[in-house]
Amino acid sequence: MFGVTILGNNSAVPAYDRHPTAQVVTLNDQLFLIDCGEGTQMQISRYRIRRSKIHHIFISHLHGDHYFGLIGLITSMGLLGREQELHIYGPPELEGIIQLQLKVADTRLPFPLHFHPLTEEGLLTESPRFSVECFSTKHRIPCWGFVIREKRKPRKIDKEKLLRYEIPAAYYEQLKSGADYETKDGNIIPNEAVTIPNKAPRSYGFCADTKYDEGIIEKVKGVSVLYHETTYLKDLTERAENRFHSTTVQAAMIAQKAGVEKLLIGHFSSKYETLDAFRTEAREVFENTELAIEGVTYKIG
Amino acid sequence: MFGVTILGNNSAVPAYDRHPTAQVVTLNDQLFLIDCGEGTQMQISRYRIRRSKIHHIFISHLHGDHYFGLIGLITSMGLLGREQELHIYGPPELEGIIQLQLKVADTRLPFPLHFHPLTEEGLLTESPRFSVECFSTKHRIPCWGFVIREKRKPRKIDKEKLLRYEIPAAYYEQLKSGADYETKDGNIIPNEAVTIPNKAPRSYGFCADTKYDEGIIEKVKGVSVLYHETTYLKDLTERAENRFHSTTVQAAMIAQKAGVEKLLIGHFSSKYETLDAFRTEAREVFENTELAIEGVTYKIG
Repeated sequence: MFGVTILGNNSAVPAYDRHPTAQVVTLNDQLFLIDCGEGTQMQISRYRIRRSKIHHIFISHLHGDHYFGLIGLITSMGLLGREQELHIYGPPELEGIIQLQLKVADTRLPFPLHFHPLTEEGLLTESPRFSVECFSTKHRIPCWGFVIREKRKPRKIDKEKLLRYEIPAAYYEQLKSGADYETKDGNIIPNEAVTIPNKAPRSYGFCADTKYDEGIIEKVKGVSVLYHETTYLKDLTERAENRFHSTTVQAAMIAQKAGVEKLLIGHFSSKYETLDAFRTEAREVFENTELAIEGVTYKIG
Repeated sequence: MFGVTILGNNSAVPAYDRHPTAQVVTLNDQLFLIDCGEGTQMQISRYRIRRSKIHHIFISHLHGDHYFGLIGLITSMGLLGREQELHIYGPPELEGIIQLQLKVADTRLPFPLHFHPLTEEGLLTESPRFSVECFSTKHRIPCWGFVIREKRKPRKIDKEKLLRYEIPAAYYEQLKSGADYETKDGNIIPNEAVTIPNKAPRSYGFCADTKYDEGIIEKVKGVSVLYHETTYLKDLTERAENRFHSTTVQAAMIAQKAGVEKLLIGHFSSKYETLDAFRTEAREVFENTELAIEGVTYKIG
């Protein structure tokens, strides 16, 4: 399972029962929380997200609609007796904000909290199964996007051929990781002759808040699903530019130029009560576009 | 109109669609917000509270379930173009928390924000129509309760008697404020002979978070409505004591000893899915008790 569940799809001021930005990416039994606007802990309960499975939280920037819910989530995790460690990645000033609020409440968290300041683009964390990178976007204050990638999966054994070449089971793991096999006689059986490639690794790109910026294209090239903000419809291109946000058409152009498989759009301005026009406009440029709707989980790859 | 609308009635961790503490007191066209847990701005929209009428916000203490929604509310007020001044009363450290979060977002509020640190008991603000006092409660960290009082209303003119004593209209305002009338002959007509008292001024007492503390009785003596926390039912008296909270019976005893007209109870622990037992237990001690239910406005006096 690799998917993203939308907990909030609205921009700054909550409206029409839409919430500020928060998303949970599920990769097998690992949950990644991206951004944490006010009310995220309530949305987590509402959509029955297993908060104990969240070990990594990524905060794109310090506009309130992307992080005001973080301190409440952390505090509640503590009150609920969490013991597992939690990693938070965000702009450097975020650590002081968290620590100050814990201090004045005389709160000592019962779990280890590791803060990782975002200062440069690149790898943030990885395991044998995934990696997470960050890249900077163009917003009014420092802002970061994230790419969560599955690691390349081991090759699959072609059992029929193994039998034909009489390769012992003890070598299977080496073959999966791509090694050739040397027979007793010193002959080499190439890996490709006895294994088949697994599915291509899937990936999710989250572009945070940003004005139209072709610098992003390289960072999210070919991802399975790209989330790009679309605060405004295309008739407000100038307003988008002035406020360091993007329109439907701009998001779709990035998706197209980056050659992604699917585009997910969100961060809708509170001025829009309905969202259909966002989909229509984006699809005129990039057909495989979906609206990020709260509560829905979008499959990645 | 004098009443209190409950926006959140739950303790620390939100549960069962109950929200953390927040209440709006309406006194004619003046709204006072007391505490502002996470999600308060959404509750304000949900219950159609006119946020532009809020000029005073009182924060009892710096546990998150009483203030994590404040920065979001302030920020949204700014984004919505508020220009009127806003007064915030809270523990001194709150100002730094607000300013830090505005600074990292590079936010300049379009309205004047006046912060008033709570440091000693007494009068916080007053107008010709109301006064607000604070008093300290016994909690794990410094914590404040509030009393909002209507000012005593002017006496009413008894028109029939004014005619009988031939008192000119120019003296009416002086009579209303309690002055006697001296006739041309030097005779004194006592105020009580020509005016009748108006209704007694009404008042609302908010006890914040507190363990059972008889020191509170004097502060809220005779208020029209007393809000007192009841985090636990009476079988958890020891837990309440340890965690600086109160039980149903303790809240009702304070109400009884303070001779208040009505008791409103809230701040229910997340361990309770239903609330009926809270009412039953409190009423055994103090009959005129109501549960603080979200969205309901309770008349004061």
